[in-house]
Amino acid sequence: MKIGLIGLGIMGKPMAKNLLKAGYDLAVSDLNRSAVEEAVAAGAKSASNAEIGADCGVVLTMLPNSPQVKAVMLGEDGVAVHMKPGSTLIDMSSIDPMVSKEIASELEKKGIEMLDAPVSGGEPKAIDGTLSFMVGGKREVFDRHKEILGAMGASVVHCGGVGAGNTTKLANQIIVACNIQALSEAMTLAKMAGVDPQLVFQAIRGGLAGSTVMESKAPMMLEGNDRPGFKIDLHIKDLNNALDCAHSVGAPVPMTAQVQEVFQWLHSHGCGGDDHSSIIKYYRMLTGLESL
Amino acid sequence: MKIGLIGLGIMGKPMAKNLLKAGYDLAVSDLNRSAVEEAVAAGAKSASNAEIGADCGVVLTMLPNSPQVKAVMLGEDGVAVHMKPGSTLIDMSSIDPMVSKEIASELEKKGIEMLDAPVSGGEPKAIDGTLSFMVGGKREVFDRHKEILGAMGASVVHCGGVGAGNTTKLANQIIVACNIQALSEAMTLAKMAGVDPQLVFQAIRGGLAGSTVMESKAPMMLEGNDRPGFKIDLHIKDLNNALDCAHSVGAPVPMTAQVQEVFQWLHSHGCGGDDHSSIIKYYRMLTGLESL
Repeated sequence: MKIGLIGLGIMGKPMAKNLLKAGYDLAVSDLNRSAVEEAVAAGAKSASNAEIGADCGVVLTMLPNSPQVKAVMLGEDGVAVHMKPGSTLIDMSSIDPMVSKEIASELEKKGIEMLDAPVSGGEPKAIDGTLSFMVGGKREVFDRHKEILGAMGASVVHCGGVGAGNTTKLANQIIVACNIQALSEAMTLAKMAGVDPQLVFQAIRGGLAGSTVMESKAPMMLEGNDRPGFKIDLHIKDLNNALDCAHSVGAPVPMTAQVQEVFQWLHSHGCGGDDHSSIIKYYRMLTGLESL
Repeated sequence: MKIGLIGLGIMGKPMAKNLLKAGYDLAVSDLNRSAVEEAVAAGAKSASNAEIGADCGVVLTMLPNSPQVKAVMLGEDGVAVHMKPGSTLIDMSSIDPMVSKEIASELEKKGIEMLDAPVSGGEPKAIDGTLSFMVGGKREVFDRHKEILGAMGASVVHCGGVGAGNTTKLANQIIVACNIQALSEAMTLAKMAGVDPQLVFQAIRGGLAGSTVMESKAPMMLEGNDRPGFKIDLHIKDLNNALDCAHSVGAPVPMTAQVQEVFQWLHSHGCGGDDHSSIIKYYRMLTGLESL
């Protein structure tokens, strides 16, 4: 079966290579010519979005955010116009789950199936093919396409109907952002009270306060390492989607709103490209601490 | 060497029994006669606070909060009046680290050493003798008394000078409270958006959002189990100390302040005795969800 992938950014490019490695017949499309050429050198065919829609039984998209997915799929002469009944869109972008549902409902009118399948793991796991896919859509459609996602990921979990993948991703991003801020706040208090945050880390990591965020981000905070990892600007995008989704469904998200404001403040102070653990900088700027 | 323990509450009583099991010559004191009788039946001697101060080279205290520790130690005819130069106070209560420092500085005038050594782990670990001690005080004083704490705990970590134990405990409590709220907020959003929180839990626990809080509290939230564990009212006490400490040292704690308000709201709605994972009830009340 022919597969098409639209979007060869930081994530999409290594994902394309893993699909090729797994033996899939892959057509690719991106506005960035050099990314397309790199994929072609690895064995892909270059195609237009319209060609991908017309020729591929499965269309994958890996795009920045909701508006791009909507425009590419449903815009004038969008991919949906060209896709055949019985074909499937798997959108791997991280977008507002309400938009996933909207796109799915448009595609359904044309007999096209859809899965929303955002990932967690970032560029290193995209390269290694060990991403975690959180997938929404019909069980039967999920089962039929699980193997394709498995070529790019170590974990492929079905979370419910269309939108459930992105909703799960938003829940993940809320927890990660809040945990980073909690860690930053606690470590700043310790430092200001004269206690070495490194000792605090050692004393509490094994208890109820322990977390993957603590294990991966406390050392970065302690070293003053702000290399992404996952950029603040991307986390801002995800939390905007979380807030939009929350407003649509009537869920209260006061903690998410406040951490988003911290991220926004950091963005407006030139830190948007730093790793999201740079929330510690917000606390350092408030306290004048040069380091933890 | 004779050891005295003042405070035989939920935590102090099993800790006394573990000291006796380890062979220490233990005198105990508490306003609650039946707790004293239980400790005496296990091998302890009953004594007044004054007798403990006069007779014991090491005085342990396990009391509710800063005012009680201050009153027992430094109040009129307090224990400090009776303690001899060269003796040591080990305060195992969870209190404001600023108060720990204040007490230590009064005791120092009389040649009495002090460690602040709050614990994490709760009643089950107090019974098993597997508490985690976070200890502040001089290294040499810590080394001399580590074995006593080892009779009650699985982990005994030196975190810095006096107050560092309680500061570390506050950092721990800030992180735990915020993580519980983040988990509650994320799961509520998922549920309101139509996704099964159990599937969200399964999909994200292995990734960056994973934490000990998630592993121990998500199942309680999903089952509607609010049995403590650790009561909201105790977490309120700890966060009040965190806020007091933060105000003293000039540390910004906006996230702690907001989770404290959530706890207070739950307290005023009759949930103070519930497990701290009952933050989920705040979200359930706002959304009308009967369960996760």
